[in-house]
Amino acid sequence: MKKNGRPSIPRKTVYRLSIYLRCLARLRENRINTVSSEALAKAAGVKPTQLRKDLAYFGTFGRRGLGYDVTDLSHMIANELGTSSLQPVILVGVGNLGLALASYRGFEKEGFEIIAAFDAAPDRKRDKELKQPILGMDRLAEFVHEQQVKMAILSVPAAVAQEVTNALVAAGITGLLNFSTVMLAVPEDVIVNNVNLAIELENLSYFIQN
Amino acid sequence: MKKNGRPSIPRKTVYRLSIYLRCLARLRENRINTVSSEALAKAAGVKPTQLRKDLAYFGTFGRRGLGYDVTDLSHMIANELGTSSLQPVILVGVGNLGLALASYRGFEKEGFEIIAAFDAAPDRKRDKELKQPILGMDRLAEFVHEQQVKMAILSVPAAVAQEVTNALVAAGITGLLNFSTVMLAVPEDVIVNNVNLAIELENLSYFIQN
Repeated sequence: MKKNGRPSIPRKTVYRLSIYLRCLARLRENRINTVSSEALAKAAGVKPTQLRKDLAYFGTFGRRGLGYDVTDLSHMIANELGTSSLQPVILVGVGNLGLALASYRGFEKEGFEIIAAFDAAPDRKRDKELKQPILGMDRLAEFVHEQQVKMAILSVPAAVAQEVTNALVAAGITGLLNFSTVMLAVPEDVIVNNVNLAIELENLSYFIQN
Repeated sequence: MKKNGRPSIPRKTVYRLSIYLRCLARLRENRINTVSSEALAKAAGVKPTQLRKDLAYFGTFGRRGLGYDVTDLSHMIANELGTSSLQPVILVGVGNLGLALASYRGFEKEGFEIIAAFDAAPDRKRDKELKQPILGMDRLAEFVHEQQVKMAILSVPAAVAQEVTNALVAAGITGLLNFSTVMLAVPEDVIVNNVNLAIELENLSYFIQN
């Protein structure tokens, strides 16, 4: 899919970039400055040919016999992924799961900040306080526009997921991380990644049966 | 991968079975008794040829001109996925995310029950009460053995993820849903499904850039 003038890269390649980035971070922590494609591929659990093919999309080729510079390659990948600066994200649906996601500290370390949460009942008593404001759905469009937010985490009940998605898309959201169990219909220029925890468990369940 | 005498089915096919099952559930709610492969494929967002190929792995073929019986096909798929009866699951690592997952009610509806949680500090004060017991890691092996648990949700910090995984595998767990950011090393007969929320966001981030 060629989007916004970017090269047409398979989504799996982009997933693998995230994994390479994490392997490189571990190398940096261990003060390792260069890495061969074989060693990096092994750490990432892929074949060296796959690694080289993935990086070639971005014009990056290891130097034969020298390998990759760990810092340079990290920066290049973070840049490509758009995580070299903190990106604003909103969360919609502050139920049980939404509450946990909004307070999950892992995101910021990775370059994403949930700057606000939205809910149909923003003032409902909840199990814990969030550091982000919880706003009503009527505030959504204005907020997304003013803060120039492009990404949203969707953790609303299935029954309203499509309707909320339509509102998000109308407001200018172009990337959705969908925790609802609904297959969302969106325009072609909007990307949805689905995280369905029950489906992951079912998948495991199939493979562990006797 | 041929496991335990089961046919060798691609993991993606098994994921799609979960989606077909959800589409069929919606049809049943709407009291629709039969469905054509075209209509079911469309609801699931796949091509009809894909649907027919997926179901053929299990010896199920629609009757030409008649389509599939919605109830029969649901039962067949739930049976294959092993979700026709409630399956016990344990959760390991009761931090922020673990707490949310353990209290997430969506799992039971889908055939999974988190029957206990384990943590290195089981008695630590937490933001909310779980209905499940929180046990120390020293109780893990005995519990898994006695309750014949096969599946675990892993939500421990990255630094201890591999060590905890080794303990789970030694105890008899063969299916792991991994929320830690670590690529886990496991024996061949153990299945790991990774859910890395930061990687999902990064992936979106790549595709929404201008």
